[in-house]
Amino acid sequence: MDKINRDKLYLDAKAWVLEAGEQIRNKINEPRVIETKSNPDDLVTEMDKQTEKFLVEKIKATYSDHYIIGEEGYGDELTSLQGTVWIIDPIDGTMNFVHQQKNFAISVAVFHDGIGEIGLIYDVMADELYHAKRSEGAFKNEELLPEPRQDLKLEESIVDMNHYFLCPNRIVDEKIMHQMIRTVRGSRTYGSAALELAYVAEGIIDAYLSMRLAPWDIAAGVVIVNEVGGNVTTLDGDELNMLGNNSILACNPKIQEQLLAFIKNGRK
Amino acid sequence: MDKINRDKLYLDAKAWVLEAGEQIRNKINEPRVIETKSNPDDLVTEMDKQTEKFLVEKIKATYSDHYIIGEEGYGDELTSLQGTVWIIDPIDGTMNFVHQQKNFAISVAVFHDGIGEIGLIYDVMADELYHAKRSEGAFKNEELLPEPRQDLKLEESIVDMNHYFLCPNRIVDEKIMHQMIRTVRGSRTYGSAALELAYVAEGIIDAYLSMRLAPWDIAAGVVIVNEVGGNVTTLDGDELNMLGNNSILACNPKIQEQLLAFIKNGRK
Repeated sequence: MDKINRDKLYLDAKAWVLEAGEQIRNKINEPRVIETKSNPDDLVTEMDKQTEKFLVEKIKATYSDHYIIGEEGYGDELTSLQGTVWIIDPIDGTMNFVHQQKNFAISVAVFHDGIGEIGLIYDVMADELYHAKRSEGAFKNEELLPEPRQDLKLEESIVDMNHYFLCPNRIVDEKIMHQMIRTVRGSRTYGSAALELAYVAEGIIDAYLSMRLAPWDIAAGVVIVNEVGGNVTTLDGDELNMLGNNSILACNPKIQEQLLAFIKNGRK
Repeated sequence: MDKINRDKLYLDAKAWVLEAGEQIRNKINEPRVIETKSNPDDLVTEMDKQTEKFLVEKIKATYSDHYIIGEEGYGDELTSLQGTVWIIDPIDGTMNFVHQQKNFAISVAVFHDGIGEIGLIYDVMADELYHAKRSEGAFKNEELLPEPRQDLKLEESIVDMNHYFLCPNRIVDEKIMHQMIRTVRGSRTYGSAALELAYVAEGIIDAYLSMRLAPWDIAAGVVIVNEVGGNVTTLDGDELNMLGNNSILACNPKIQEQLLAFIKNGRK
């Protein structure tokens, strides 16, 4: 993808994300229509759908030859990442959106021939936009995000993961994860994968683990984390597949090997 | 404590907390002197000490007959809560302060003859002050915090607790806690007890559990949670003792009985 095209795409994507965010902020205190999807804790609201529809219409009107993978079904059914593909989560962290009216994000990525070119994660209520173009640096609003700390030790790390990792589960032996959590300095759970990946990029947490995420949860985050020099793989250290679900380990490279060793030791 | 005296105390306490917060914000990007206390993950910085010293000096200069319980040792050694007692944590969430430069709070409470009269929790970087005077309502900045939701079900609750509750520990059988976490809708961990209590008061989380906290971690939060109509007890449902350490369950009253039943079932 050439620079001129990418710069235009980036400006359009950024403008649409900010506009969508403003629409959400304007309606943040309205009553919500809340439905559940795969399980009673998997929430969706009318605002998730409206926001995806808004973004898809903008993209389709301007870039009729682009493809879209979106959480709420307004996009395309894709079996390939050839061409230019937008990967969209209109509201990542819907539970936070419903219960907290904050701590959620709009996540938009643009991939071209399978390569992540643009990532945008917009913390709507904080009005903080994490953004990156491949090889041009990652930013939080106007501030360049620094490279991951070189002197990080696992014992001084903050790890973000869902509490389910520490309960019996199908992915990894919880006893190994208990050891891991006893090894690190602190643990956090914020409830929005997009924001948690942005936090890894920012270096305010050192690792983020998840058992199973869809492409729209992670696509923008992967671009941004990679751009600062962080690593993102599956929990087994394998490359991600943006056409299906993945487990996730995003982290400062200094602690990647040790975290992968814990997981390998407990992997089911 | 009569209203005139309490109103003056409240205005002084608020002014000093906001001033201390401004000092911290002005120095947020300076290099830190970081030491550890009880264990390698129990951090303290020069800013914790400076801030407590600032607050203690202000209080002592204006209210020479008041007592102070403070985290960093500038206060008094108390064996009674008779008289007027300030309970101070200059930086609650020091790990967040060090690693994130945000998500920490100044926590200041005023108790009189053992009764919590004033609570102030200041999220310094967000510039959000949670505050309450007993029987006069609790606020986030100028906004009155509503009563806890009356229609809350445990299955639709967000519970905040440290990941250690789900690992083998001396307080409660982790297997019971696994059941609890599978029952609720979501789990979060933010890493500042004062802010987590403020979030319970605000209703953006429905419960906060901790194994062991000092009076300065909880005193202001207890005043604010109680003031909105939330409940705060030990994990066994007992009354708190502000002269020693306590376990904590702060929650929406609608789910208190069920949470206490889980804990009782697994209590060691």
